[in-house]
Amino acid sequence: MASGKILVAQGGGPTAVINQSLAGIALEARRFPAIERVYGARHGVRGIVDEDFVDLSLETSHNLEQVAGTPSSALGSTRDKPDLKYCQEILKVLRAHEIGQFFYIGGNDSSDTVRILSSQAQQAGYPLRCIHVPKTIDNDLVGSDHTPGFPSAARFVAQAFVGANLDNAALPGIYVGVVMGRHAGFLTAASALGRKFPDDGPHLIYLPERTFDLEKFLADVKATHARLGRCVIAVSEGIHDAAGTPIASLLTKDIEHDAHGNVQLSGNGALADLLCEAIKARLGIKRVRGDTFGYLQRSFIGCVSDVDQREAREVGEKAVQFAMWGTQDGSVAIERCGSYAVDYRLLSLETVAGKTRLMDEAFIAAGSTDVTDAFMLYLRPLLGSGMPEPFRLRPSPVARIGAGPG
Amino acid sequence: MASGKILVAQGGGPTAVINQSLAGIALEARRFPAIERVYGARHGVRGIVDEDFVDLSLETSHNLEQVAGTPSSALGSTRDKPDLKYCQEILKVLRAHEIGQFFYIGGNDSSDTVRILSSQAQQAGYPLRCIHVPKTIDNDLVGSDHTPGFPSAARFVAQAFVGANLDNAALPGIYVGVVMGRHAGFLTAASALGRKFPDDGPHLIYLPERTFDLEKFLADVKATHARLGRCVIAVSEGIHDAAGTPIASLLTKDIEHDAHGNVQLSGNGALADLLCEAIKARLGIKRVRGDTFGYLQRSFIGCVSDVDQREAREVGEKAVQFAMWGTQDGSVAIERCGSYAVDYRLLSLETVAGKTRLMDEAFIAAGSTDVTDAFMLYLRPLLGSGMPEPFRLRPSPVARIGAGPG
Repeated sequence: MASGKILVAQGGGPTAVINQSLAGIALEARRFPAIERVYGARHGVRGIVDEDFVDLSLETSHNLEQVAGTPSSALGSTRDKPDLKYCQEILKVLRAHEIGQFFYIGGNDSSDTVRILSSQAQQAGYPLRCIHVPKTIDNDLVGSDHTPGFPSAARFVAQAFVGANLDNAALPGIYVGVVMGRHAGFLTAASALGRKFPDDGPHLIYLPERTFDLEKFLADVKATHARLGRCVIAVSEGIHDAAGTPIASLLTKDIEHDAHGNVQLSGNGALADLLCEAIKARLGIKRVRGDTFGYLQRSFIGCVSDVDQREAREVGEKAVQFAMWGTQDGSVAIERCGSYAVDYRLLSLETVAGKTRLMDEAFIAAGSTDVTDAFMLYLRPLLGSGMPEPFRLRPSPVARIGAGPG
Repeated sequence: MASGKILVAQGGGPTAVINQSLAGIALEARRFPAIERVYGARHGVRGIVDEDFVDLSLETSHNLEQVAGTPSSALGSTRDKPDLKYCQEILKVLRAHEIGQFFYIGGNDSSDTVRILSSQAQQAGYPLRCIHVPKTIDNDLVGSDHTPGFPSAARFVAQAFVGANLDNAALPGIYVGVVMGRHAGFLTAASALGRKFPDDGPHLIYLPERTFDLEKFLADVKATHARLGRCVIAVSEGIHDAAGTPIASLLTKDIEHDAHGNVQLSGNGALADLLCEAIKARLGIKRVRGDTFGYLQRSFIGCVSDVDQREAREVGEKAVQFAMWGTQDGSVAIERCGSYAVDYRLLSLETVAGKTRLMDEAFIAAGSTDVTDAFMLYLRPLLGSGMPEPFRLRPSPVARIGAGPG
C-alpha cells in the first residue's frame, strides 16, 4: 500500500461537478491513517512546477461538502500541456515534497499528462501512484460510458433549448444555438432532450461527426421554415468542412490557439453570427436570432444533474481506493451496468490518454440532422431528477365570424 | 360591473412568468358568473385583427396551472405596434365578438396600445374595459416598484455571473458578459447579486444610464487586471456613445429595426466580440472571452424566482378584480409596502404608456462601474428563495521548499 502525502489537481475546462471529485478524493483519503497529508496544487500542473500547494488536510469536511456543490475548479485550472521536460520538473517537485500519490482530475489532455508522468516516475524508479480522474463536458473519453460534468452541461443545454423553443414559438423565426464540443457532438445532441411535443425544436441538429455543408444547411432550414413557420437549430461549435477546417475558423481573422494546438472556438459569437447572416441573406427570412451558449453551459450554478453529482463524487472516492488497494496506475471509468446503475473500473492510462471518443453511429439519425431513440435512452437517466417540463394550452379555436379586415 | 366575454393577449418579449399572469386572469375570471367566456388572442394584437382566438374556458384548471409554470408566452406574442388604424380594426373585431373586457399582458409598448384602444373605445361609445397587465424583463415601467419577469431574468443573470466568476477564477483572463436592456440597466446591474467574496466579479458593470467611453473602459479593465490578474465584466446591450448611438450598432452593417423603430440589439454576438477584440488588441491580454446571454436569460426553464411567480400570478388576478369591481381602465402596478411585501394599484394608462423608467441615480455607484448597497437591498428579495450559493476553499498554503525550477 502506498503511503505518505497525496496530491490532487484539476486541469482543463471547469465543470459544474468537478469539485465533487475533489471532495471525494480529499474526504476518502481521511479514512486512511497511512495518508498523512492531502495537498492540492493550485491551477493544475502549473501549480506543481510553481510549488503552489494548499493543505486540504486543514479544510473542514463541512466546507469541503459546500465546495463540492460549487461549480468550476476550486483549486484553479490550467491549459498547460506538459511535455517531457515539464513532466520531469513536476516529478522533481513531487519527490521534494515526498508525494506518494497523484490524482489529476481532467479530460483527455490531462490523462495524457498522467500517462507521461507515470512512465517518467517508473523510469526514475520513484514510487508514485498516478490516477487520472475523469471530467469533461465533451463526454469524449474513450472507455467510459460517459464522463462526469457532461450530464450537468447536457441538462443545461436541454433546459436552454426548452426555453429557446418556447420563445421561438411565441415570436416565430429562426433561432440558432451554438453549443460547445470541438470533436464530439454529445453536448449539442443533448439539445434533443428539450423536446416534448412533436413540433418542438430543435428541429435541426448539426454535429461535428458529420461534414457541414452550408448549402445543405440552408436547404434544411428553408424546408423546416416552410413546414412550421419557424425553425430552432442546435449547432456544435466544432462543425467543419470536408477538409476538417472548423467553420468558425473560416471567418476569424486572428485565430487563437491554445497550448494543445486547438483553435479557440468558444468565447465569441462568430459562428452563430455567420450562420444567421447566411440565413438572412440567402433565404430572405427576417427574424433570425443566434445565441452562443459559451461559458454559461459549463459552470452555471443551480442547474446540475444529481446523478452527475453523485457519480463525480464516486469517481473521486474510487480513485483513492484504486490507489490505496490497487497495484497500478490508471484512469477511472464509469461503466453502465443497469438501467440505470453504474460501476467503476480502472483503465490503463494508454487506453484513455490523448484519445477522443466520438458519438456512436447508432446515436445519429439517418439524414444527420437529428439523434436516434438510442441516444435519447442513453442520455435521459444522466440528466437526473426534477427536470422541469414545459406545458402548452390545448387547441380550442373560436369560430371566426368574419370581423377581421381580411 | 362589466360582463360577457373577456379577451386576454400577450405582447412583446416573453418572460419566465408571463403565463402566471395569463393563468391568474383565466382562473380568477372563473369566479365571476357574469363572465361567460375567456378568449385568448394568438400572437397578441396580431391575433385580434386576424380573428385568431382560442377559448380558454375550455381549458382545465390543472393544465392552466402547468402552463403557468412554463416560460414564454403560451398564447404567442407579437412585435406589432398598432397605430390608430390598427386599433380601429382591433375594436371592430372586439365589437363583433362582444368582448367586454380586454387584458393585454406586456411592457411599455403594449401599455401604449391599451391606451390608444381605451381612448378609441370611449370615442366610439363602445363599453370596453381595458387593463394593461405588466411584464418586462427590462423592469422599465414607470410607476411600478418592479415588473413581473424581471426578477426571474435577474436571477438567471446573477446565477450566470456566479458561474462566470468561478470559471474566470479557475482559468484567469478577461470575461465579458453582455446582458439584455435597451435603455434601463436593471438587468445588467443584477449581475452584482452574483458576488459573495470581496474579490468576486463582476468587477466592472456598464449600464445604459451612463455614456460608454471605450478609452475609459479599457483603462478600467487594465486596472482591474493589474490588481487581480483577471476581470469579469457585465455590459448592457444598450450601452451607447455620447450621441446616444448604441455601441452595438456602430459596427453592424445591416441594422435591423423592429416595428417600434428599435435597433436589434439581441440575437447576435457583435457587441461582446467588439469589446473582446479591443481588449486583446489594445491591452495585449491573451485570454479574453465574451458571452452574449441572449435569449437564454428571458425564457430559461428551471431558473425562476418564486417571488416573481406569485407576483405575476397576482397581477393577473388583480387585473380581473380591477376590471370587474372598478370603474376605470388602467395599468396594474406593483407597490412595495414592506421588507418584503407588496400591494397592487391601478395606475392611469397615461402614467405608464410608452414611458421608460431608468435606474434610480441612488442605485448607481460613484464611478459608474458598480451598483450601490441601495440597489442590492432593492433587488435581493425579488430573486426569491433557494438562491444557490458558491463556496471556496479557505487558504492554507504549504511552505515552499525550493524544489521548483525557479
